Amino acid sequence: MTNTQVTLVQIDNYGPWTVTPEPRREADLQTMQSRLYADISQFVGNRGGYVFFSRFDNMIAVTNGLSMADHELLQESVNNRYPVTLSLGVATGTSPVQALADATTLVQEAGSAQDKSRRECLKGRAIETAHQTADDVQIAHFDVINATGNYTDELNAFDTFIEIEQGYAELMRHMRTAHESLSFFVGGDNIIVTCPDLTEGDYEDAIHHVEDAVDVELQVGVGRGENAHDAGFAAKHALEICRADGTRVEVDW
Amino acid sequence: MTNTQVTLVQIDNYGPWTVTPEPRREADLQTMQSRLYADISQFVGNRGGYVFFSRFDNMIAVTNGLSMADHELLQESVNNRYPVTLSLGVATGTSPVQALADATTLVQEAGSAQDKSRRECLKGRAIETAHQTADDVQIAHFDVINATGNYTDELNAFDTFIEIEQGYAELMRHMRTAHESLSFFVGGDNIIVTCPDLTEGDYEDAIHHVEDAVDVELQVGVGRGENAHDAGFAAKHALEICRADGTRVEVDW
Amino acid sequence: MTNTQVTLVQIDNYGPWTVTPEPRREADLQTMQSRLYADISQFVGNRGGYVFFSRFDNMIAVTNGLSMADHELLQESVNNRYPVTLSLGVATGTSPVQALADATTLVQEAGSAQDKSRRECLKGRAIETAHQTADDVQIAHFDVINATGNYTDELNAFDTFIEIEQGYAELMRHMRTAHESLSFFVGGDNIIVTCPDLTEGDYEDAIHHVEDAVDVELQVGVGRGENAHDAGFAAKHALEICRADGTRVEVDW
Amino acid sequence: MTNTQVTLVQIDNYGPWTVTPEPRREADLQTMQSRLYADISQFVGNRGGYVFFSRFDNMIAVTNGLSMADHELLQESVNNRYPVTLSLGVATGTSPVQALADATTLVQEAGSAQDKSRRECLKGRAIETAHQTADDVQIAHFDVINATGNYTDELNAFDTFIEIEQGYAELMRHMRTAHESLSFFVGGDNIIVTCPDLTEGDYEDAIHHVEDAVDVELQVGVGRGENAHDAGFAAKHALEICRADGTRVEVDW
Repeated sequence: MTNTQVTLVQIDNYGPWTVTPEPRREADLQTMQSRLYADISQFVGNRGGYVFFSRFDNMIAVTNGLSMADHELLQESVNNRYPVTLSLGVATGTSPVQALADATTLVQEAGSAQDKSRRECLKGRAIETAHQTADDVQIAHFDVINATGNYTDELNAFDTFIEIEQGYAELMRHMRTAHESLSFFVGGDNIIVTCPDLTEGDYEDAIHHVEDAVDVELQVGVGRGENAHDAGFAAKHALEICRADGTRVEVDW
Repeated sequence: MTNTQVTLVQIDNYGPWTVTPEPRREADLQTMQSRLYADISQFVGNRGGYVFFSRFDNMIAVTNGLSMADHELLQESVNNRYPVTLSLGVATGTSPVQALADATTLVQEAGSAQDKSRRECLKGRAIETAHQTADDVQIAHFDVINATGNYTDELNAFDTFIEIEQGYAELMRHMRTAHESLSFFVGGDNIIVTCPDLTEGDYEDAIHHVEDAVDVELQVGVGRGENAHDAGFAAKHALEICRADGTRVEVDW
Repeated sequence: MTNTQVTLVQIDNYGPWTVTPEPRREADLQTMQSRLYADISQFVGNRGGYVFFSRFDNMIAVTNGLSMADHELLQESVNNRYPVTLSLGVATGTSPVQALADATTLVQEAGSAQDKSRRECLKGRAIETAHQTADDVQIAHFDVINATGNYTDELNAFDTFIEIEQGYAELMRHMRTAHESLSFFVGGDNIIVTCPDLTEGDYEDAIHHVEDAVDVELQVGVGRGENAHDAGFAAKHALEICRADGTRVEVDW
Repeated sequence: MTNTQVTLVQIDNYGPWTVTPEPRREADLQTMQSRLYADISQFVGNRGGYVFFSRFDNMIAVTNGLSMADHELLQESVNNRYPVTLSLGVATGTSPVQALADATTLVQEAGSAQDKSRRECLKGRAIETAHQTADDVQIAHFDVINATGNYTDELNAFDTFIEIEQGYAELMRHMRTAHESLSFFVGGDNIIVTCPDLTEGDYEDAIHHVEDAVDVELQVGVGRGENAHDAGFAAKHALEICRADGTRVEVDW
């Protein structure tokens, strides 16, 4: 049974900071947000986790394998190197959506995202190493079948982008509503989803749902592991089988 | 009349690179993609342009003020510092969508995104400095009214994310279809759109369309300028007026 | 007794890469070298180690607390994100210089720094966690007494730089020859040295030696710990006592 | 005749910031310093200049081709993305050392490096585009003859480092005292020097001086140009001739 550890990463007081004393250059905000995300991706990724950029001022991570001390070090390191600080909420559960809801509540209870006095809150509980199991995380890696041939080399770049976004928006809502799962677009034509224990049938349904709703054809590789990297890497390999064999769903067990 | 210069930035042969000889660690791909985008944001932004991460392997930029020599330098600098290379197509026009379509065609004609032998193609034409005018670029900066109060401090972080995505997906399609405009989510609850000459009425329609379709309330500040930074900065200031006065649409002229 | 774990980090085939097919833009080489160093500093630093930029194509790190698996992950991550790769040699010993000599030999035996076929060699042994002790690392943090008042606010910036370099060159040779220690300039007027078990008298001698030889007045804080961060942080606090009390040598035990 | 434009880049109030409220993690300071330098290298380098890391809290740049407006943009961009700010002094002259002295004075007059209230001072004058000539900058690129064969593949990495530092310290003093030149170690076994109009004989003397004083054998390529990149690139090519032909001094005119 899955036991997903989810961390909500929220920049403190970001909205006001971006316009105080005057609005800041957009290109600089984009640079800073992206590099902050990239650093968190290295920190979390080097410990077996995945972090998703989401809205950049609020990022969502699957952090099985990271302790509360690790979370504290991340905060300290960002404080030493950026003009902003982070608040972190950590929670676990069978349902990824429930774990994220709990993590969010921990941060909300500490104060508003635009509360000038809420800085670097750190709340929650991490799974102890001794309690980690090889089933804790289930990751599904979806991509669009032959995106390059069907879209990238054919349509203008924005219409390709619209198609990918349709596929993502549809999958995101379906997986959250039907399966308590969290879906993230990660670039190209790839969507990574952290799920509870789902079956091959659940993934086939998801693919058909998206195809029927918005006419975007997905395939998916699914993996399980002790942490997001292990599960996600198995999912990548399963997806390679889809690509090689022309199948729509491949699970790694 | 607008004369938008649009550049399509496409990483060469990226799909195959990410899985050769084996799939690469996802966290590292995220880090590299984000830092590459951040660097392009600095390069383009320091010359008055805006670049949007879009799909990360394909990025779209408004590059009024950048010459073809500037584009060539960007390619050279990335080649010296990253394990990937970029192909660039540059085109201009009254319609941002048309300009992007032309830029895309230039790159597609040079070869597929996964063509091993297509590297660092650079094609197109930039607007000469002498021909730049203060009307060339129109930027609209939308955000969700009181996102912090209505969503961030209330819902779990993924459900907030879903709401913002709905608003974006709806606005993106409407602005492209009805107004030949290119819309980009830039973090938080912000969407930046590059438009041809639109009226206040056009923006009011867009806002009502999104509210009716997905129940997400937007406000917008609009600016014009010789380049994306000038237009975008004016748009940011106009948006501050919306926030202060409670209006839904503010234009900077 | 100290047991310093030292890692030599050497970029593979770097000299030839910088001029193939043509010499590369110097500013890009500087950017890449610095960012590669910064990433290694985060990776090593987040695990309690210190890495020093040294010559940038060859970097020296005190890596107590990092396992061989950690070193392998660092190589993999750099391979995924940079146009160059790293070879690593790891060795331990009472004498930091001897440990570095052993680490260097491991890499040299695998092949020349400009051997096209030597890539990502990883050799050596790390201290097992169970064998770490609070005495393993001794770090001394030197700085120039009142550098700002005596130099930075008085001389032109290059003459200040020359003075700091004199102090560094003299200290570096003395500490290596007399005390088997490795000294690194880390910016500003700061030099960090990894030492075997030295006494307060040894540090007083070092300070007097530098003052007599090049007329640069240093003070020093010294700390011990299980890893470089612990020892170095204690050293920083000891140095603050020098600054507050006007003493020349403060040890943290 | 040379007309070198030199900029002193000084981080405001850095010493106090690194220890307030407590000393900050050394690895984070190293990361931030290096990334700040890398960003300045991109900004300055993309406009034809060179910046040298020097002491990291004080950096020296050859900025022919950058206007005062460019310098102001650099300050603004750093302010938007880092927890520190920069003060800049800009001056020009036949003598690089004199230009640097003037640039330093401009910053010192605005306030101490540790003056809490001195922030983002910007003073000086840039060379107007119309007045730039192909002789303005002379760059010499020195390296150690066969460093890899003689040192890197033979000695332990610190003893190689000591040898390179000896060569640098000696060259640095000689070039400043005898020739009003500014010398900077840039990694590997490379030293880049910005000079006034020197002759081949001056470079031969410099090489013999260093060989006699510290037994380190250097070779040098020299170039001239309108800016540091043009001059430095010509110098790199001249150095390649030294490497190919076994000569000690090659000038590009």
